[in-house]
Amino acid sequence: MTKPESRKSGVAAVNATGKCATSASAAAAELGDDDNVSVEPGCPSPSTSTHIRANVMKQTSRESMYRRNTECEVYDDGTNTFFWRAHTVTVLFILTCVLVYVTLLEETPQDTTYNTKRGIVASILVFLCFGVTQAKDGPFTRPHPAYWRFWLCVTVVYELFLIFILFQTVHDGRQFMKYIDPKLGVALPERDYGGNCLLYDPGNTTDPFHNIWDKMDGFVPAHFLGWYIKTLMIRDWWMCMIISVMFEFLEYSLEHQLPNFSECWWDHWIMDVLVCNGLGIYCGMKALAWLSMKPYQWQGLWNIPTYKGKIKRIAFQFTPYSWVKFEWKPASNLRRWLAVLGIIFMFLLAELNTFYLKFVLWMPPEHYLVLLRLVFFVNVGGVAMREIYDFMDDPKFHKKLGQQAWLVAAITVTEFLIVVKYDPNTIMLPIPFVVAQCWFLGILLIFTWTLWRFFIRDITLRYKETRQRKQEAPADRDRPLGNGSTAAPSGRSKLNGGCETVRQRKS
Amino acid sequence: MTKPESRKSGVAAVNATGKCATSASAAAAELGDDDNVSVEPGCPSPSTSTHIRANVMKQTSRESMYRRNTECEVYDDGTNTFFWRAHTVTVLFILTCVLVYVTLLEETPQDTTYNTKRGIVASILVFLCFGVTQAKDGPFTRPHPAYWRFWLCVTVVYELFLIFILFQTVHDGRQFMKYIDPKLGVALPERDYGGNCLLYDPGNTTDPFHNIWDKMDGFVPAHFLGWYIKTLMIRDWWMCMIISVMFEFLEYSLEHQLPNFSECWWDHWIMDVLVCNGLGIYCGMKALAWLSMKPYQWQGLWNIPTYKGKIKRIAFQFTPYSWVKFEWKPASNLRRWLAVLGIIFMFLLAELNTFYLKFVLWMPPEHYLVLLRLVFFVNVGGVAMREIYDFMDDPKFHKKLGQQAWLVAAITVTEFLIVVKYDPNTIMLPIPFVVAQCWFLGILLIFTWTLWRFFIRDITLRYKETRQRKQEAPADRDRPLGNGSTAAPSGRSKLNGGCETVRQRKS
Repeated sequence: MTKPESRKSGVAAVNATGKCATSASAAAAELGDDDNVSVEPGCPSPSTSTHIRANVMKQTSRESMYRRNTECEVYDDGTNTFFWRAHTVTVLFILTCVLVYVTLLEETPQDTTYNTKRGIVASILVFLCFGVTQAKDGPFTRPHPAYWRFWLCVTVVYELFLIFILFQTVHDGRQFMKYIDPKLGVALPERDYGGNCLLYDPGNTTDPFHNIWDKMDGFVPAHFLGWYIKTLMIRDWWMCMIISVMFEFLEYSLEHQLPNFSECWWDHWIMDVLVCNGLGIYCGMKALAWLSMKPYQWQGLWNIPTYKGKIKRIAFQFTPYSWVKFEWKPASNLRRWLAVLGIIFMFLLAELNTFYLKFVLWMPPEHYLVLLRLVFFVNVGGVAMREIYDFMDDPKFHKKLGQQAWLVAAITVTEFLIVVKYDPNTIMLPIPFVVAQCWFLGILLIFTWTLWRFFIRDITLRYKETRQRKQEAPADRDRPLGNGSTAAPSGRSKLNGGCETVRQRKS
Repeated sequence: MTKPESRKSGVAAVNATGKCATSASAAAAELGDDDNVSVEPGCPSPSTSTHIRANVMKQTSRESMYRRNTECEVYDDGTNTFFWRAHTVTVLFILTCVLVYVTLLEETPQDTTYNTKRGIVASILVFLCFGVTQAKDGPFTRPHPAYWRFWLCVTVVYELFLIFILFQTVHDGRQFMKYIDPKLGVALPERDYGGNCLLYDPGNTTDPFHNIWDKMDGFVPAHFLGWYIKTLMIRDWWMCMIISVMFEFLEYSLEHQLPNFSECWWDHWIMDVLVCNGLGIYCGMKALAWLSMKPYQWQGLWNIPTYKGKIKRIAFQFTPYSWVKFEWKPASNLRRWLAVLGIIFMFLLAELNTFYLKFVLWMPPEHYLVLLRLVFFVNVGGVAMREIYDFMDDPKFHKKLGQQAWLVAAITVTEFLIVVKYDPNTIMLPIPFVVAQCWFLGILLIFTWTLWRFFIRDITLRYKETRQRKQEAPADRDRPLGNGSTAAPSGRSKLNGGCETVRQRKS
């Protein structure tokens, strides 16, 4: 079924009540036939004149219902019609005019290479024109759905570019970068990192703390900002901390492959984990708290009387339309646990790709393409994470893995394949024995815990519950039962959950 | 807002009642605030246990409401879950495996040209993988939404290919076709058409009717089939006939540019218009009548007991999910009139492009690419026409011009621009004076009729209505009026329609 949030996007003048009614009726439809009809109060709306009550709703799967209700608590008066319209016909008309001008009125140059480049750029631009007006909307709508459609199209173009690079020989692929920037395609100079790790260097009399100041470069605010944004994406303190610490472990483990992973111990743990990342995560969590508390009432710009109010409204256009708290709950069942492990794995892989890709494609770290890639990931990562969360948390309602999540996963995999193909020697450098031991131990621990938590513990619990049920059974038989499909007594919901988990695991 | 039909697609187990409720509540939300709450009977559903009543609905815009109700009369029991699921994760996994195999386990050839070709083909295939699972659904769902998503992606690829060709020099563009088929890129031999037009040729004693038999080639069934499909697209007898006749006029007018437009008079009017096209249109109309009468009850394959029933159900999977009759009503208002004129114009332009594109890109008429282009248009034309109809007929509900319609329009324009750029001399060959006079007369007639029908006649009507209203006014004042926005007495609906038309024209 359609996602409740995506309905507003791209179309004008939707008031939140409409959305509520739809999501409510969609939910009702999804829950199957309605033997147990009950009147549901619908969505609480601040305006008394806009009440649409969906009167058929079953009382199962309370959690997902609760979340949908939370999302319903958005009030939007739905003005700004022109701003929200997709302008499909206008874009088509302008596109036609530009094509007529460029191809018929301008003389075509005779340079084949230049024309080829121009043709490819024109194709990409036309694709963007199409995508920005017509692509499927994702979960985000602020500041404008077209903004997120634009990034979706960029994601597609980037993935196709990566696939093309993946199919070239190593030499051709590196030289292909010259078409983008003639300065590229040149082997990078070897660099030496690490070095002197003394916090207080008595050998340097003018400034004994010079080692610390040396590390205070542009990467400190970059790390901070990066983790601030990552926290907004992941929306969970624990997952952020785990990824942050895991990445330092990865740097330790892989410094024999990439020399720029070798840092001083205090650079790893104090500067990175504690100061930059920690502060970023802390500020991110503060922002999250604000976003989840903030009232979501969208008054149209023209309905706000004061100038100050108008400016504030414009600024708020850059905050989300509504807010969904992420509750990953990895330990609640095996599916969620594996999903969270998978997300952490993909996240770390994407982070590693940043460094390895630069290395194999001979990109200098300060090149604008490296920065563009990060800007790109900042924009698409949030959407992808939200889509993964939706797919994991509420698979009945979000039946497809979101498009952006699909693409980001494909991109991460493709980037990794490029790294493996372009420099198999570096990747295959054997891991030092101690490091390998540590990783083996870590994986064993996770495996054992998984086995205990979702298999052994559950079997014990199930055994206990079966015994308990047997004892309760005589008392139960006297009680009259309603419709079998719906009248599961609420006292047993936990038990049902347990059974479901077991069934899911078996299939 | 979401289209009611697109909601079912790509997701599993949707029963039609859910769809009805959603479309009803969405319609209610769209109609603004609900001062005048009335209980609406919702969608008639064959199964009595599945009633979801949307109880808020206003009684305006009856026609679009009626259409939505008609579409609701589809019954779908929503089984075949696996068949309908989008398999996003499965496709991603298989794609990853294929990429790993092809790029890491196979050795990369050292041939740069071959790798470039392979890279482009791989990019297109990955794009198709993404699009088929993730692209936005269109109005059609049978035999499977993925089928229509596939054609949407093909449309995008074709448009980007055209844009690329458009940006090349004439020579490069023609030679570029060699990459697709090495036999292309060679100038076509000049051909002579027309010739002897005698129905009964007394000079040929063995078979005086040989001229007729000569024309009985593969194009006769092609014309018939083509017009059968076009009728299913346009769904209107009159529009089909007009386009069919207009195209023969165009052939007459342009035979000085393209020699294969020059045919005998009886080939134009008897063989083409009457026999092939006419019969095609007749059969198409019969099929339309069957499709609009046929009951739309979709029982899942597993719920059908007999083998014969199952086979019938599988065959019916290739018929539409529901059916929308097109009522173009070109004379009802200026907007519709201009839209219908525009559609006819684009349709004829697309037909002409078939011939001109072959001519300028040096494609032999029997080449498989020419056939592929026609197969492509057969598949996307129907979707595009439906989207245009939706956009024209119900712009409140379909706020965007559909994606396929947008692309087909862009493709038609791009193809025409390629023709103009690649062979401006042929296009600019002056039209014979008589032909020019005829066209001028035709356009003048259309223009005069437009002026009379939508401006002069309306002003007269409006004057009459104002006078009539003035006479009725004293009687009206005594009657108590309800809420001004909703309680327009039904007796005035025609008048309101008239007013709306006038307002629209002014804006």
